Amino acid sequence: MFPPQLMRPNLTCVTLGVADLQRSLRFYRDGLGWPAVLPPGSDSVAFLPLSGVVLALYPKRLLAEDATVPPERSGFPGFTLAHNTRSEAEVDAVLAEAKKAGARIIKPAERAFWG
Amino acid sequence: MFPPQLMRPNLTCVTLGVADLQRSLRFYRDGLGWPAVLPPGSDSVAFLPLSGVVLALYPKRLLAEDATVPPERSGFPGFTLAHNTRSEAEVDAVLAEAKKAGARIIKPAERAFWG
Repeated sequence: MFPPQLMRPNLTCVTLGVADLQRSLRFYRDGLGWPAVLPPGSDSVAFLPLSGVVLALYPKRLLAEDATVPPERSGFPGFTLAHNTRSEAEVDAVLAEAKKAGARIIKPAERAFWG
Repeated sequence: MFPPQLMRPNLTCVTLGVADLQRSLRFYRDGLGWPAVLPPGSDSVAFLPLSGVVLALYPKRLLAEDATVPPERSGFPGFTLAHNTRSEAEVDAVLAEAKKAGARIIKPAERAFWG
């Protein structure tokens, strides 16, 4: 029914670009009581594991920088949807498939410092 | 460890406000091959079931209207995160908890035409 898939229909992470991480943590973690994971050595990101997907909170300015787009609201809505793969080769295949499907690749694949 | 929770850490649906639904379907459904559900009787929404969460595509103008906010990019980033509940009473409890946690309720709870 559907063409052979390289990119599985899976959403790994929704990252919200926030103005004030501590304020967001007060809402999600302290207010709603949602478990938050704060990676040691970083005070700029928080992960909230939900069922089936992770909600990440990250400063909007850094999120825009990571996506290589201007942080102003006119161009950047302040959130990203992430699709993780199991290998580096799969990253290339998924990007090629997305491009073929009409996506504009604004940032080529590269190794990230976090692995 | 955490306070008693009314609102479980669960994300039901990520809705992207899109400029052209047919164009988005060509990318996600035809290009990537992701199964899309188009509710009969509506040509303005598409649901793409992912693992653990649903990605919905909906015209940005209507999405802003539903959230009772201006559609211009300066105020509305063009996406929503939805948390579904099991009953109407739970809606009230969750909204009260969110408000207590610091949320600004911009639209009071109401029955939706789709149930």
